Amino acid sequence: MTHDQAPAPPRSTLVITAHAGDFVWRAGGAIALAASRGERVTIACLTYGERGESAKAWREGKSLEEIKGIRRDEAERAAATLGAEVRFLDAGDYPLLATPELTDQLVGIYREIQPGIVLTHPLTDPYNGDHPAAARMALDARVLAQAIGYPAPGDVLGAPPVFFFEPHQPEMCDFTPEVLLDITEVFETKRKAMECLSAQQHLWDYYTDLAKRRGVQLKRNAGPNLGLPHTTYGEAYMRPYPQVTEELA
Amino acid sequence: MTHDQAPAPPRSTLVITAHAGDFVWRAGGAIALAASRGERVTIACLTYGERGESAKAWREGKSLEEIKGIRRDEAERAAATLGAEVRFLDAGDYPLLATPELTDQLVGIYREIQPGIVLTHPLTDPYNGDHPAAARMALDARVLAQAIGYPAPGDVLGAPPVFFFEPHQPEMCDFTPEVLLDITEVFETKRKAMECLSAQQHLWDYYTDLAKRRGVQLKRNAGPNLGLPHTTYGEAYMRPYPQVTEELA
Amino acid sequence: MTHDQAPAPPRSTLVITAHAGDFVWRAGGAIALAASRGERVTIACLTYGERGESAKAWREGKSLEEIKGIRRDEAERAAATLGAEVRFLDAGDYPLLATPELTDQLVGIYREIQPGIVLTHPLTDPYNGDHPAAARMALDARVLAQAIGYPAPGDVLGAPPVFFFEPHQPEMCDFTPEVLLDITEVFETKRKAMECLSAQQHLWDYYTDLAKRRGVQLKRNAGPNLGLPHTTYGEAYMRPYPQVTEELA
Amino acid sequence: MTHDQAPAPPRSTLVITAHAGDFVWRAGGAIALAASRGERVTIACLTYGERGESAKAWREGKSLEEIKGIRRDEAERAAATLGAEVRFLDAGDYPLLATPELTDQLVGIYREIQPGIVLTHPLTDPYNGDHPAAARMALDARVLAQAIGYPAPGDVLGAPPVFFFEPHQPEMCDFTPEVLLDITEVFETKRKAMECLSAQQHLWDYYTDLAKRRGVQLKRNAGPNLGLPHTTYGEAYMRPYPQVTEELA
Amino acid sequence: MTHDQAPAPPRSTLVITAHAGDFVWRAGGAIALAASRGERVTIACLTYGERGESAKAWREGKSLEEIKGIRRDEAERAAATLGAEVRFLDAGDYPLLATPELTDQLVGIYREIQPGIVLTHPLTDPYNGDHPAAARMALDARVLAQAIGYPAPGDVLGAPPVFFFEPHQPEMCDFTPEVLLDITEVFETKRKAMECLSAQQHLWDYYTDLAKRRGVQLKRNAGPNLGLPHTTYGEAYMRPYPQVTEELA
Amino acid sequence: MTHDQAPAPPRSTLVITAHAGDFVWRAGGAIALAASRGERVTIACLTYGERGESAKAWREGKSLEEIKGIRRDEAERAAATLGAEVRFLDAGDYPLLATPELTDQLVGIYREIQPGIVLTHPLTDPYNGDHPAAARMALDARVLAQAIGYPAPGDVLGAPPVFFFEPHQPEMCDFTPEVLLDITEVFETKRKAMECLSAQQHLWDYYTDLAKRRGVQLKRNAGPNLGLPHTTYGEAYMRPYPQVTEELA
Repeated sequence: MTHDQAPAPPRSTLVITAHAGDFVWRAGGAIALAASRGERVTIACLTYGERGESAKAWREGKSLEEIKGIRRDEAERAAATLGAEVRFLDAGDYPLLATPELTDQLVGIYREIQPGIVLTHPLTDPYNGDHPAAARMALDARVLAQAIGYPAPGDVLGAPPVFFFEPHQPEMCDFTPEVLLDITEVFETKRKAMECLSAQQHLWDYYTDLAKRRGVQLKRNAGPNLGLPHTTYGEAYMRPYPQVTEELA
Repeated sequence: MTHDQAPAPPRSTLVITAHAGDFVWRAGGAIALAASRGERVTIACLTYGERGESAKAWREGKSLEEIKGIRRDEAERAAATLGAEVRFLDAGDYPLLATPELTDQLVGIYREIQPGIVLTHPLTDPYNGDHPAAARMALDARVLAQAIGYPAPGDVLGAPPVFFFEPHQPEMCDFTPEVLLDITEVFETKRKAMECLSAQQHLWDYYTDLAKRRGVQLKRNAGPNLGLPHTTYGEAYMRPYPQVTEELA
Repeated sequence: MTHDQAPAPPRSTLVITAHAGDFVWRAGGAIALAASRGERVTIACLTYGERGESAKAWREGKSLEEIKGIRRDEAERAAATLGAEVRFLDAGDYPLLATPELTDQLVGIYREIQPGIVLTHPLTDPYNGDHPAAARMALDARVLAQAIGYPAPGDVLGAPPVFFFEPHQPEMCDFTPEVLLDITEVFETKRKAMECLSAQQHLWDYYTDLAKRRGVQLKRNAGPNLGLPHTTYGEAYMRPYPQVTEELA
Repeated sequence: MTHDQAPAPPRSTLVITAHAGDFVWRAGGAIALAASRGERVTIACLTYGERGESAKAWREGKSLEEIKGIRRDEAERAAATLGAEVRFLDAGDYPLLATPELTDQLVGIYREIQPGIVLTHPLTDPYNGDHPAAARMALDARVLAQAIGYPAPGDVLGAPPVFFFEPHQPEMCDFTPEVLLDITEVFETKRKAMECLSAQQHLWDYYTDLAKRRGVQLKRNAGPNLGLPHTTYGEAYMRPYPQVTEELA
Repeated sequence: MTHDQAPAPPRSTLVITAHAGDFVWRAGGAIALAASRGERVTIACLTYGERGESAKAWREGKSLEEIKGIRRDEAERAAATLGAEVRFLDAGDYPLLATPELTDQLVGIYREIQPGIVLTHPLTDPYNGDHPAAARMALDARVLAQAIGYPAPGDVLGAPPVFFFEPHQPEMCDFTPEVLLDITEVFETKRKAMECLSAQQHLWDYYTDLAKRRGVQLKRNAGPNLGLPHTTYGEAYMRPYPQVTEELA
Repeated sequence: MTHDQAPAPPRSTLVITAHAGDFVWRAGGAIALAASRGERVTIACLTYGERGESAKAWREGKSLEEIKGIRRDEAERAAATLGAEVRFLDAGDYPLLATPELTDQLVGIYREIQPGIVLTHPLTDPYNGDHPAAARMALDARVLAQAIGYPAPGDVLGAPPVFFFEPHQPEMCDFTPEVLLDITEVFETKRKAMECLSAQQHLWDYYTDLAKRRGVQLKRNAGPNLGLPHTTYGEAYMRPYPQVTEELA
């Protein structure tokens, strides 16, 4: 999908999420795959998920700052396991509010990173308003970063494709798998990254099962003859923008 | 998207259309691209479009058989120009009726051709009921051809991806461009194929303009920095099934 | 909406319905309005509604032929009250099956009547499959009648606008009022036509209330200052095809 | 939901499916629950799934009649395990064609069984056309059975609520969980019924995992305080018709 | 729907509305039913509707404070008639703006009331932006109140089911009746509550007619044999979250 | 659509857009048509499009104020060519933020202009967030201006119909042509207005082609017999509110 004559630098991936754990459960396979190809992956976590996704720590009586610290540590270890860098914007969760200032910070990151691909939440989630807020800002910032007239440092952005990763309750979030990504070869890495999130142990098997189920669908949509392994693992994504390609496949 | 160890045979494309001219206007670029890569392309035309899309010939007083002959000749020349083979099922148009017998004929073609990719009409068209009827049978036959228990000659089919090509009035047919295919390098071939359809000269420029407009969108979705030529030509497609891939792009 | 230089003949309206009573409840106002302007209105009733909409007569022990006769008489009186002609195709209801033969009969009516406007059921009704079947055939026949190559007597048809009238349970039929027609000046006529359907007396007030409610919406969408009467009566319609106009209004 | 003064007979459930195995994977919990309450459950299998869902048997070289026999035996054992009766209409699968004759047979079953509740497939399934065909007939027959004028033996039907059970790839079938049924107390029975379908062993764990995931959603939608067991099993359903109730809950 | 061993306290209902009159027209039946069962019902009115829904008072030259007082009195009398308590947040209408502060006030109410059921507006209303703003905050606050990490007094909330009540122009607000509630036995109470709103007398009959129409639909969806009274009154609701149940019905 | 006895003043049109050029490309034909009938047309431009739609000027090193000046001049010349007045609110683009203050300014304009018709952007545009922000405020202000209780000078507004004009990538913006306006007789004027926007010369032909394509659709939906000229030009619109009419057409 490139028309460049000159050798392009390795592609860069930008992952924008609401909370510290989102990138592991939902996009850990895609991140590990990109890293395994030698690409750079940067994760922008808008919050630590300190209020909305840390029930166990609150019940244990931990303070806000302690909880942030725990979440940061876990996320950094998970990112390192996957081969990615993680940045925290510490914008405060539950609720995460979409603001021009936060969007502007994201514009700066886009212009710095120059991602060739962007991953974020889908725009609907009746169970967690932080997710759509993050997605809204991720999309808005991407458009602003494309405009030469927008006052932020760095070069203007191209139009990198965007992928929405799968939410926890896909059917309630208008989420339909439009892209099934084969993550079989990096699944062990994703599992290790999940295990860095020790407070959410009940999700390790849940997302392993999900990866198997998406793998079954992947095989069903790829035909029986492709030599896929017996257990195939998958991740599902949606595209808010059309795919641009030089070959139908 | 292949896990095969053994060298795969060249991919085969199957195009299933209602009328003799559809493949030229709507998918001529994709066909020419595949042929230019050395792939085999087979077009199954369910009818000649003898009643519904030959108004000029009827006004000139031609007979039904004469009109079929003209349409067949034009379509064969256009297919040859694109580098494809065309087969006519002569099922009768306006209305084209979806029947088990015709669907069974398509199952036979699927099993014979073993397509790696399928192109057909979208499932909605309030201006022409033949198009959805053709699409319905194309999809049903693809599923039947996958079942070992379905009694038809040939090997069972895998699950080739399906692409819906763009209808004449896309917004009225629930058609949203999900894939924008860059056909710049074969556009001259597509134009020559269109010019084989001499009775519909008014559509030559119409579909050239459409290709330019889809090219503009293609550039807008690919970013300004990709080295795309000043005039890029495109074709738009939809996917009724999820894309299966080993890399997000 | 006409560019004709020559004086056009009075516009003709074609109403295609599944059962004998449908045109009264759902489109009586539009029919009476057209008739009051001196236009010709023809109603094609595909069935008498003898099985599905005549529960009272069946409970009274009437025979099939008696019931058909009763329904025919009532519908003819209602049509005469509205100023329209009614034709019965007697295709059998519950279920009314969409067939090529019945569609062909409708093509003949289209070519004979040359309607400038078409009214029929919407395409979805989970409570009554006859309604979508009638609508499907009404739309298919309209497209076939436009093709010079379709073998039926009469001149080819133009592209008259189509309006779907309101079903009994609009929200369950994907029915959204897109056009609110002011029927205040003919409402008394519609009420008289409803009263011709003596077996369904419980619906007289129901559809009077509906007309008032649609009238309230009509006023709300037309602004408070238009001099509309205190009680405005309305009917709601949908458009499956775009409106063509020379002035936005 | 009953206003009856007289003691009502135990409620009866009618399950209408395309293939012999569908009722186990998709509605086994609902069936076992109803049976455990002493209600009558009747399953109408339109086909044995002999062509489309018996790949293993075909690969083993079994004949059509042998395969039908195997499927019948398995389904009967599974139904007995769940506490239900199963009837086979042997209409032929892949493709299962919706016909007036088959619909009429279903009308007869509705009038005989007088179900208080109906379960069937959803109306969309791009992977298997037999499922929508079965659902279409199930819904049409239910409406016809309500009409006193429809010529079939037995009393006319009321308007029993309909539930669509979950298809294999819910997101591709416009399936959104509208009702989450707690099947924890009968899950062991459902598992035993699944194990009657020995040719599809790979699905036992798949549908056990699905039941767990629906159980997680059930708990998330029911709140943390309801005393639900650690592992809750669920099944998901949709309602094509509005729920009628005397109390919001 | 409860697994509790211990006797539960009587269920509590929370109704969140934009304006002082909304709860009467749209949910008066549900409120009266709950109260008649001995349950507690609390209505949180975000505004008095002093600017957007008090046209008559403004035309009579009343002051803003006078109008607020009138609306408060009327609403309190209507609530008392229904058996409910009403609280006013006086946030200012036309426009009602969704703010974090107002959302936080609602979190406090959720934690205090611990509702077992929540009623509010649907999320779309092209005729009145205050309604979606209220609904947005009602849903956001419910999610925040569930998080132990959210800093507000009171116990964390479970996941009470939410019901959207019917807007004035349902078809324009994507409102489809998903639940039809039989309010026949309390309709006289609802009528009396409506009559407390003396400035909007034209709506008394309008909403009586609506209740009859929803009652007709209720009967049609419940079957003819349920012993429902000749005139059944109903209210329609939607569910933004799945129903959780132990029995399909 | 008027019931007025007294002669009405000439109708007034209000066009609300995000950027200085939008009204030319998207609604120039409707504006010129209204002006040619002697009606008043006022364009409210919320911004000059100085950051998001002036890439060429930024690349040439122009300052923000210079760019605003250029855009203002071009827009004023284009408006004059079409026969309309343009007002600039200079709210700042990329991003244009929807605020109560800006909405209030629009209320004032509505009350002053008393438009009989309103044109604005559709509510969805994944390529440009300014467009939905402008549309959101245009719709909100229209509703507020209707309320006598809203504190702004001028008479309260009626309920003028609203039309959404066509965005640059219609299929990605949920844009379906619901109204096709014949602009053939003023197309030369629209072309001249487009040519006032000298920095965007590449769009002159693009929007000429679009007008031709919409003209082809217009003819296809109007039938072959209407005496439309060989080349018909059209513009497409959507209606967010129902059409109110005294005659179906």
